[in-house]
Amino acid sequence: MMHNHSQESGTHYDANTDRMPRTTLFFSVHDMVGALDECLRALKRASVSMTRIESRPSKSVDPGYDFFVDVDAHTKELVQRVIEEVKKVKVVRDVRFVGSLEEEEEISAVVNEHAVPWFPRKVSDLDTFAEKVMEMGEELSSDHPGAKDPVYRRRRYDIVQKAKEYRTGQPLPRIEYTQEEKDTWRQVYTRLRAMYPKYACREFLHVFPLLEQNCAYGPDTIPQIEDISRFLKDCTGFTLRPVMGLLTPRDFLNSLAFRVFHSTQYIRHHSDPYYTPEPDCCHELLGHVPLFADPNFAELAQEIGLASLGASDEDIEKLATIFWFTAEFGLCREGTEVRAFGAGLLSSFGELEYALTEKPEKRTFDPSLTAVQKYPITQYQPVYFVADSFRDATSKLREFNSSMRRPFQVRYNPYTQSVEVLDTKDKVQHFARTIRNEMQLLASALEQL
Amino acid sequence: MMHNHSQESGTHYDANTDRMPRTTLFFSVHDMVGALDECLRALKRASVSMTRIESRPSKSVDPGYDFFVDVDAHTKELVQRVIEEVKKVKVVRDVRFVGSLEEEEEISAVVNEHAVPWFPRKVSDLDTFAEKVMEMGEELSSDHPGAKDPVYRRRRYDIVQKAKEYRTGQPLPRIEYTQEEKDTWRQVYTRLRAMYPKYACREFLHVFPLLEQNCAYGPDTIPQIEDISRFLKDCTGFTLRPVMGLLTPRDFLNSLAFRVFHSTQYIRHHSDPYYTPEPDCCHELLGHVPLFADPNFAELAQEIGLASLGASDEDIEKLATIFWFTAEFGLCREGTEVRAFGAGLLSSFGELEYALTEKPEKRTFDPSLTAVQKYPITQYQPVYFVADSFRDATSKLREFNSSMRRPFQVRYNPYTQSVEVLDTKDKVQHFARTIRNEMQLLASALEQL
Amino acid sequence: MMHNHSQESGTHYDANTDRMPRTTLFFSVHDMVGALDECLRALKRASVSMTRIESRPSKSVDPGYDFFVDVDAHTKELVQRVIEEVKKVKVVRDVRFVGSLEEEEEISAVVNEHAVPWFPRKVSDLDTFAEKVMEMGEELSSDHPGAKDPVYRRRRYDIVQKAKEYRTGQPLPRIEYTQEEKDTWRQVYTRLRAMYPKYACREFLHVFPLLEQNCAYGPDTIPQIEDISRFLKDCTGFTLRPVMGLLTPRDFLNSLAFRVFHSTQYIRHHSDPYYTPEPDCCHELLGHVPLFADPNFAELAQEIGLASLGASDEDIEKLATIFWFTAEFGLCREGTEVRAFGAGLLSSFGELEYALTEKPEKRTFDPSLTAVQKYPITQYQPVYFVADSFRDATSKLREFNSSMRRPFQVRYNPYTQSVEVLDTKDKVQHFARTIRNEMQLLASALEQL
Amino acid sequence: MMHNHSQESGTHYDANTDRMPRTTLFFSVHDMVGALDECLRALKRASVSMTRIESRPSKSVDPGYDFFVDVDAHTKELVQRVIEEVKKVKVVRDVRFVGSLEEEEEISAVVNEHAVPWFPRKVSDLDTFAEKVMEMGEELSSDHPGAKDPVYRRRRYDIVQKAKEYRTGQPLPRIEYTQEEKDTWRQVYTRLRAMYPKYACREFLHVFPLLEQNCAYGPDTIPQIEDISRFLKDCTGFTLRPVMGLLTPRDFLNSLAFRVFHSTQYIRHHSDPYYTPEPDCCHELLGHVPLFADPNFAELAQEIGLASLGASDEDIEKLATIFWFTAEFGLCREGTEVRAFGAGLLSSFGELEYALTEKPEKRTFDPSLTAVQKYPITQYQPVYFVADSFRDATSKLREFNSSMRRPFQVRYNPYTQSVEVLDTKDKVQHFARTIRNEMQLLASALEQL
Repeated sequence: MMHNHSQESGTHYDANTDRMPRTTLFFSVHDMVGALDECLRALKRASVSMTRIESRPSKSVDPGYDFFVDVDAHTKELVQRVIEEVKKVKVVRDVRFVGSLEEEEEISAVVNEHAVPWFPRKVSDLDTFAEKVMEMGEELSSDHPGAKDPVYRRRRYDIVQKAKEYRTGQPLPRIEYTQEEKDTWRQVYTRLRAMYPKYACREFLHVFPLLEQNCAYGPDTIPQIEDISRFLKDCTGFTLRPVMGLLTPRDFLNSLAFRVFHSTQYIRHHSDPYYTPEPDCCHELLGHVPLFADPNFAELAQEIGLASLGASDEDIEKLATIFWFTAEFGLCREGTEVRAFGAGLLSSFGELEYALTEKPEKRTFDPSLTAVQKYPITQYQPVYFVADSFRDATSKLREFNSSMRRPFQVRYNPYTQSVEVLDTKDKVQHFARTIRNEMQLLASALEQL
Repeated sequence: MMHNHSQESGTHYDANTDRMPRTTLFFSVHDMVGALDECLRALKRASVSMTRIESRPSKSVDPGYDFFVDVDAHTKELVQRVIEEVKKVKVVRDVRFVGSLEEEEEISAVVNEHAVPWFPRKVSDLDTFAEKVMEMGEELSSDHPGAKDPVYRRRRYDIVQKAKEYRTGQPLPRIEYTQEEKDTWRQVYTRLRAMYPKYACREFLHVFPLLEQNCAYGPDTIPQIEDISRFLKDCTGFTLRPVMGLLTPRDFLNSLAFRVFHSTQYIRHHSDPYYTPEPDCCHELLGHVPLFADPNFAELAQEIGLASLGASDEDIEKLATIFWFTAEFGLCREGTEVRAFGAGLLSSFGELEYALTEKPEKRTFDPSLTAVQKYPITQYQPVYFVADSFRDATSKLREFNSSMRRPFQVRYNPYTQSVEVLDTKDKVQHFARTIRNEMQLLASALEQL
Repeated sequence: MMHNHSQESGTHYDANTDRMPRTTLFFSVHDMVGALDECLRALKRASVSMTRIESRPSKSVDPGYDFFVDVDAHTKELVQRVIEEVKKVKVVRDVRFVGSLEEEEEISAVVNEHAVPWFPRKVSDLDTFAEKVMEMGEELSSDHPGAKDPVYRRRRYDIVQKAKEYRTGQPLPRIEYTQEEKDTWRQVYTRLRAMYPKYACREFLHVFPLLEQNCAYGPDTIPQIEDISRFLKDCTGFTLRPVMGLLTPRDFLNSLAFRVFHSTQYIRHHSDPYYTPEPDCCHELLGHVPLFADPNFAELAQEIGLASLGASDEDIEKLATIFWFTAEFGLCREGTEVRAFGAGLLSSFGELEYALTEKPEKRTFDPSLTAVQKYPITQYQPVYFVADSFRDATSKLREFNSSMRRPFQVRYNPYTQSVEVLDTKDKVQHFARTIRNEMQLLASALEQL
Repeated sequence: MMHNHSQESGTHYDANTDRMPRTTLFFSVHDMVGALDECLRALKRASVSMTRIESRPSKSVDPGYDFFVDVDAHTKELVQRVIEEVKKVKVVRDVRFVGSLEEEEEISAVVNEHAVPWFPRKVSDLDTFAEKVMEMGEELSSDHPGAKDPVYRRRRYDIVQKAKEYRTGQPLPRIEYTQEEKDTWRQVYTRLRAMYPKYACREFLHVFPLLEQNCAYGPDTIPQIEDISRFLKDCTGFTLRPVMGLLTPRDFLNSLAFRVFHSTQYIRHHSDPYYTPEPDCCHELLGHVPLFADPNFAELAQEIGLASLGASDEDIEKLATIFWFTAEFGLCREGTEVRAFGAGLLSSFGELEYALTEKPEKRTFDPSLTAVQKYPITQYQPVYFVADSFRDATSKLREFNSSMRRPFQVRYNPYTQSVEVLDTKDKVQHFARTIRNEMQLLASALEQL
C-alpha cells in the first residue's frame, strides 16, 4: 500500500531521524587492469564502515563494472567523503547515490547533474525503501483504534521490525498470529468471502479458490506472505515484500516495475474488525493479492510501475491517481454487468456493496481523464472508473504513458530483476536483436499452429 | 555437468532401485464450479501419500487450472491408481506424468498418447532430476582415485545427500570444506589462475576478478554455490543447483532452458589434484561458472537448452555434442588470436595449453557439422571448433535448431520461470501482443537515442 | 475531392441512369485441372458482352485463381445470369460483385451473405468509380457561376469525358488550357503564392519549389496532372487520377488506401476567379498536391483510406469528418506558431487568413472528438483542429481506428497495388514472415549505424 | 538475361564508343532559401546540354533536396566542368555520378571518396543501363546462326533500337512479329509446352494457364512484354524492361532489387529453332516469365538483387553464380520428386530432359557452397542444385547475404520504387516505426483470426 494522501492532507513524514540509516552508492568503472582493486582501495581510504560491496558486469559501460556500496554513514559529511574518494579513481563514471529521504535531494544535488529523480535499477535497491515509510510505521496516528492499546502497539512494533530488517533474497518473515488476531481475520474473511461471488470480477473469482488450496486462505488462518509470494511467483512472477507502513507513492509505484508488491503483515485492532484507517493484512491479502496472480492484471500493475521510474513529481501524482482508480477502486465490465477489482472495494464490504449500486457516478476508464480526477480518501468514492478489461486498460495506459515525454525509455529484465535504461546504441541494438529472435520464434510458431 | 559418454560406453544406469522415489503427476482442469475440490477428492480417493499438491492458473486451458502432484508411490500400481482416479474427474485434461528413469517410459505409454518426450515446464520440475543421476552419484567407479578411500567416500556421500534432498526455492547447501579439500583446491586454483591471462577468452577474464571480489574466489577458499548463484542471478539470471553426479544429457540440457546449471560440490581426490575422471567443483567453479555471468554466453547456453525440450533422442545427442564443443571444449577467435572458453579446457592446465598449440585440428564452428562430430572423452580432443563470437554462435545455432523440425515451439517465461509451448492461438496472440509492445518501446527508445 | 455534404444537404445523386454502366464481377476458383477453362466457358454461356476478363494467382484461395470480369450488362437480369452461370462451376468460391450505385445493394444482397460493404481490392478496381460521381460531373448546379455559360459548360463536358473514359494504367489526360483558363489560374496562383510563406506549414513550403522546378508550377501555366503524378510517385508513391466531379465519401476515401488521389482538371468560371462552389484544379493542385509529396502526410492520408475499406456507413462519416478537419481544413503546430496544411485553406486566400486569426476556435486534434464534430460547408469554419505533427496525428488516428472494431484487418501491398484482407492463417503467416525479415534487417542496420 | 561468362571468357566489352552516351549526376542540397535556384544556375553556368533535371525531396538530407541530372556530355572534361560548378554551391552534399562503363571508374575516383560501387537508387536509374550491354547488342558474334543473314541482322537492329531508346515510365515497345518469327516461336512453344506437365515445378504449372488466358501465350502468337509486364505487376509487382542484349552481371542483378527483369524481344534465327547462343524472347518468355508471377520466387529474385547493390566484385560473382544455379538452372523438390524451375532448363527441351535424369549430379542448395561452384556455359551442367522450396532458398540466401559484411543495409521502398540505404538514425527510426505499425496490425489480425 502506498501513501496517497497528498491531495487532502499534507505530507507528514513522522520519522524524525537525525541520521542516514543506510546509504547506497552506485558507480561504474571502465574495465582496465586493476580497476576493481583500485576502487576497493578508494572505498577503504574513506575509512567509513560499509555493509555491502557488490561489483557486477556493467549494464551501462561496456566493457565495465558496476559497483553497489552500502555505506553506514550517518552524516552527510561521511557520505561525501566516500564520494570524493571514489571520484578520484580515474576510470570511474556516473557516481549515483541512494539515501534516506530528507537528505537525498541535497546530496543528490552534489552528486548528480541530471535532473531525473533517482529510481531503483535492481530488485535489491528496493531494500532502501525499508525504513522510508511516511507514517503508520512504528508510530500510530491518534485516530487509530489501537492507538491507546499498549499491547497492540507492542505487537505491531515487533511485526514491523521484521519488515525493517528484511532484505532481498531472504525468506519472508512468518508471523505467528495470536488467537485474537485470528478472530479479527475470521470476521473479516467470512463476511467478505460470502460477497465475492456476487461482486468480484471474474479473474478474482478464478484465483481465489487457488489461494484456499495452496496458501491456506480460509476463515481460521491468516495466510503467510512467504507462501503467497511463492504462489504468485509461479503465476505471474509477482512477489511480496513486508513493509512497515505507507511508502511514498514514488517508492510504492517504483516497486511495481519489478513486479514487487509491498504488503503489511499486522492486522487492524480487534475492537473494530470492520474498520481500519490504514492498510493492514486483511486489505492486502484479500483485496490485492488475488489479482496479482492474473497475468493481465500483473501487466497493468507493472506498466504503472515502469512509467513511474524516474518520472517527474507531477507524473507520479498522475500515476498514483491511476493506481487509485484501478488497483484500489477499479470496476470492470463483464458483458452487461459491472464488477469490482479494486482492493479498496474487495476488502471493504460496505463500499463494495455501495460501489455497485446506482448511487456513485461511473465513468469509462480513460487514463488522461482518470489521472487528474480528484478523490476523497476518508469516505466512499463519489466517482468510479470502469475498465473494459485489464488488457484494454493496459493498452490505453501505454498510450497515455507515451505522452509523458520522459526523456528515456526503460525495459525490465526479468532474468536479472533489473531495469535497463535504453539510452545507448548498444542497449538498443541488443533489444532489437531480442525482438528479432522473438519475431523469428513467433513466425515459426505461426507456421506450426 | 551432464553424462555424455553415450558414444563410447553404453548407458550404464547404476542406481538399481526397485522403487519410484518420487513421481510427479500433472493435469489440467477446466474452471467450473467445484472443479478444484473435485480433483482434491479424487486424489484423496486414491489413498496414496502425496508430498505436494499445487494448483495454479492454467497455462494451457483458459480458463482453467493446472495441478502438480508429487506422489510417494513406490510401485507402478500405486501411480496408476492415482491416474485412474484423476481421469474419472470429468473436466480433467492432459494428464501427464514425471517419474524415475526406468519406469517412465512404460507409464508414459499408459498416460500420454503423443510421442513428444516429457520435459520440465516449470523450474521446480527440475526437482525430479535430483535422484536421476546416471553414475558417479553415491557410488564411485573403480578407476576413481578415491574409490578405495573410505573417508573420501563417506565425505562424498554426505555431500551428495544434500544435493539429493535439495528442492527448488531452498537456499543452496553450504559445505564446510576440510583443510585437505582446501589444499587440493589451492593447487588447482593457483596453477590455472596463472594461465588464464594468456589462454582464456576476454569474457572470462572480464568476469573472473568479480568472482574474486564478490564470491570469495581465491586460493584459500572453495567458493560456496549459494554465493555464486546469487551473483550469477544478478548478471544474467543463471542460477546453480547442486547435483549428485552426472545427469542424463537430456536432463542436463533441459535445465539450461531455465538458465539453471547443475553443479557438483565435492572435490577430486587429494592424491592427484590435477586429475579427475568426472566433473568436480574445480571443474564447475573454475571452468563453467565465469561464463554464465556473460549475457551472450548465457543466451547461447539457454538456446541449447530450449532446443532440447521435448527433442528426439537423436537431436539430444546432436545438442549434447554441440554443448561438448562449445561449453566444454570451445575455442573462440579474438582478433588474430584464438582463446579458450570451454570449461573442460579452462579447468585442465594440460589440455588448455595443448588446445592452443598447432597440434590439434581447429575448425570453424558450424552447428550442422559440429553436431555430428565424433569425439573421445578420455583423452585430449583431436579436433576443436572455433566460434567467431558467442553471439555469432547463438545465431548459427538458432538457424540450426530451426532445421530440427520439432513439431512445436517453446518460449521461456522468466517471470514465472516456466516454459510455454506456443501451440494455441491464445498463446500466439499473447506473444504477438508482447512483441508489439516491445516494438513500440524500441521505436520510442530509438526516437530518444 | 469527395462529396461530403451529407450533414447539411441530403445525398442527391443526380445521375439519372437507367442502366448499369459497368459491372465488375469477382470470384475465386481452386486450382484444379481445367478450372480456368471451365470458368471461361461459364462466362461464355451467359452470352453477355464482357469488356475485360482477367485471371490472376489468387490472393485468398491457395492454390487458386482470382477472376475479374467487367460485364457490359445493362440490366440486373443480365448480371444475375452471369452470376448464376459462374456459380454452377463447382470450384468457384466467393463470388463478389461491383456495380453502379443504385443497384449495388440489391444485387449485393443476392450475391453476398456477409454484411461488409464492397471495397476495391486492386488499384484497377478504382475504375469502377469513374462514372459514380454524385454531382458536379457532367451537370452543373444552378448556383454555379458557369451554369448559364454554354461555352463553359461545353468545355467542362469535354474535360470530364476524359476522366470518364480514363482507365488504370493509361497516361493521364493532358488538357490544353485556353488563355481564359490560364488567366483565371494566374490570378489565383499569384495571390495565394504570395501568402504561403506566412501561412503554410513547413512541409508545404519545402515541396512547393520542387513543383515549380519539376511540374511547371507557376503563374503562366496550369500544371498537367500526368507530370504531377509522376513527381508524387517518386516522392511518396501517391498518384493522381482524373475525376468527373464529387465522389461519394466512401469511394473517395477508399482510393486513398491505394495512395491514389482523385483530381478534377477543369477550372472555376473566369467571371469570379476567387470563388468556386466545388473543387476545381486550383483547389487540387495548389491545395492538395504539395502535401502528397510529404511522406508523413502521405501515411496519414493512406491510414484514413485503409480504415475506410469495408467500414460501416457510420464509420465512413467519421473518417470523412476527420479528412475534413485534416486534409481540407487542418492546422498544425510549429514551435509556438500555428500554420495551415488543409487544402481548403491553402486554396482560399480569405479563409487562410481568417483561420490563423484569433476568431475561430482551435482545438487539439483528437480523432475521437474530431470525428464527431459538426461543420458547415458553405462558410468559414467556426472550429479548427490543430495537429502536433502529421506523425502524431497518424499515430492517434491508428489508435482511433483500432477502436472501430471492423471485423477484419487489411494490409496494403504496394508491389501489386492491392489490398490484402488478413483473414486466413496463410496470410497472417506470410505477414509474420515479412515482419521477421524486416526485423532482421532493422537489427542489422542498427549494428552498422 | 545477364552476361555471366566471366569464369571462362574474359570480359569483352564490344561497344567501342569514344563518347559517354549519357551521364547522370546526383547530388543533395540542404533546404535553404534559394537553394534550388542556386543549383539550377550552377548547372546553367556549366553550359552543357542537359536532357533531364529532376529535383525531389531528399531521401538522405533532412530537410533537403536531391537532384538527378542527365548530362549530354560526351567527354570527361565536360562532365568535370558540371561537377565543378555544382560543387561551388555551398549547400551541396554528396555529389555522385553515373556514367558509361569505361569512364565510370576514373570519374568516380574524382567524385567519390568511398569505395562502394555505384548502384541505382531509383527505378529510373535503370535507364542508364540501356546502352551498357556487353555484347550481343547491335552486333552479333560470329558463331551466331544469324551472323551472316543481313535481313536477320537488320531486323534485330530495329528491335534493339527500341530497347536502347526506352525510358522508365513509357509503355513497353510492341513488336509486330513476322510470320517467320512466329513460326520459330511455334516450334519452340509447342515442343516445350508438351513437356512442362512432366518436368516443370508446381508454381510454373500454376501460372502458365494464366499467361495463356491473359497474355496471349499460345503457339500462334509471340506475347508482347507490355501485356506480360502488366500481368506480373498485378501478381508480384515485377515488371519487364526491354534490353539490347547481355547486361553486366552487376547491372542485371541490381535491377532485380527493383523487381525489374530485363527481357530481350528478338527471337533466335529461324534456321535452327532449337538452338540459340544467347537469350532470346523464347528463353525469357517461356523460361523466366512464369515464375516472376509467383510471390515466393519473386522474393527470392529480389533478395539476390538487393544483396547485389553496392556489393564488391567478388560478391557480385557469387550472387551471379547463385542466380545461375537457381533462376537459370535450378531444380526443386516436390514431395519425392525433383522438378525444374530454372529458365535455362524450361526453355531447352534437351537439357530439361537431361537434368531430371540420373546423369548429372544433384546437390542440395546451400548458398555458401553454391556461390563458389564452377560451371560451364556452353554445355549441359554437370551439377545442379536442388532447393527445398523458394521460401527455404530465400531464407538460406538471407542468412548467406548477412555473412557478406557489406558495410550498409538497404531497404526497398515499393511505393517510390527506390532503394533506401539505412545509414542514418532518421531512416532507422522511420523503419522501426514502420515495423511497429505492422506489428500492431499483425497482433490485431491475429486477434480476429
